[in-house]
Amino acid sequence: MEEAPNKLRLYGTEASPFVRRVIWALKLKGVDYDFVQEDLSNKSPALLHYNPIHQKVPVLVHAGKPITESAVILEYIEEAWPDPTPLLPKDPYERAMARFWIAYGDQKHHVFHSFLACSEEGKEKAAKDLLEILKIVQDEALGDHKFFGGDTLSLVDLCYGWLTSLKYVERVVGVQVLEPMTLPRLHRWMQDFKEERVIKENLPDLEAKLPELEILRNHLVSTNN
Amino acid sequence: MEEAPNKLRLYGTEASPFVRRVIWALKLKGVDYDFVQEDLSNKSPALLHYNPIHQKVPVLVHAGKPITESAVILEYIEEAWPDPTPLLPKDPYERAMARFWIAYGDQKHHVFHSFLACSEEGKEKAAKDLLEILKIVQDEALGDHKFFGGDTLSLVDLCYGWLTSLKYVERVVGVQVLEPMTLPRLHRWMQDFKEERVIKENLPDLEAKLPELEILRNHLVSTNN
Repeated sequence: MEEAPNKLRLYGTEASPFVRRVIWALKLKGVDYDFVQEDLSNKSPALLHYNPIHQKVPVLVHAGKPITESAVILEYIEEAWPDPTPLLPKDPYERAMARFWIAYGDQKHHVFHSFLACSEEGKEKAAKDLLEILKIVQDEALGDHKFFGGDTLSLVDLCYGWLTSLKYVERVVGVQVLEPMTLPRLHRWMQDFKEERVIKENLPDLEAKLPELEILRNHLVSTNN
Repeated sequence: MEEAPNKLRLYGTEASPFVRRVIWALKLKGVDYDFVQEDLSNKSPALLHYNPIHQKVPVLVHAGKPITESAVILEYIEEAWPDPTPLLPKDPYERAMARFWIAYGDQKHHVFHSFLACSEEGKEKAAKDLLEILKIVQDEALGDHKFFGGDTLSLVDLCYGWLTSLKYVERVVGVQVLEPMTLPRLHRWMQDFKEERVIKENLPDLEAKLPELEILRNHLVSTNN
């Protein structure tokens, strides 16, 4: 496929937290791109062409060359457009810590999924498991900093940015986990994160998607998945 | 704990493929380190102190500061000692491809585990599943190159270096998967990889560990795990 040399295109869906982190990174870098909305129940030939192995979003196509897997895409964005808004620290040890916590969140994403999919009887345990993970993230990763990397946003913040949609999931499940009482610093982080201009301007409209989320939850519960 | 400023210590086990890739990286970089042998059935207080979250090997401790998760450790080694032996390409897109294939191997490691743990009836399917993954690795990642990154070793080669121990696993399972007939280019890569001086000098002695591997397999099969 012939492409303009610096043409940038992102294949994704509105609600995916893995797509959202890429959108935020591109917006923070001030890089122009086209967004191609995918329907995951009927994936486009382009998506299957560019990501034959995982067949998932997000896919970033830069000058005709595809990059897949959100954590890989984020590192690519950081390396292709390092300035003027670096999203990883310079120090190798601090970079390692950032990568560790990004990987940790992704490894534990199934706990969040289990929370969304929990049955009535499993609700208490699912909420407890999620709280345990978030406590580790708050105490060990965030610490006393404003953002995960210090005073300014980093890739780690973007990767935990899905926490801004947790309240919608909490509503359909009917249990609250991320509260000022239980997770004061992580809750405060979430408020600060949402107030950052680029984040605020690019939050998904999940209020409008609540009925869909409800349908998804009912489906997951009924298929025990 | 007080440490000499550049003291480097690696906590690991002889047989772990995740530890082995870190050993190879440090040897290729020509960096001196102390190796601390761990007994995973009786983990040392130091290991639990340095890796309280995952409690796993490898852990690299540099000047008293721990780095965990082998993929994160490898990137750290690359950034802390970039020259004279770079193990990632310079180009952001090629780096993204390297990271993609490292992640792919780790995501699919469970297929290798299932092969080691397969029952008599499950053997054929387990071998087929493993062959399918290795075919993708050969055709999509290795292509026609000598090594994954081209003519010289990269982190991707180190991460697929566990394939050099596959023949021992094949022996205890009783099925061969990685053969010149089925996977000619990947098999040729494995031969070339093992002939590289640093790799050759630092291959684990798995011949001596065959009885242990047999015991491990019997345990996994009997616990259906």
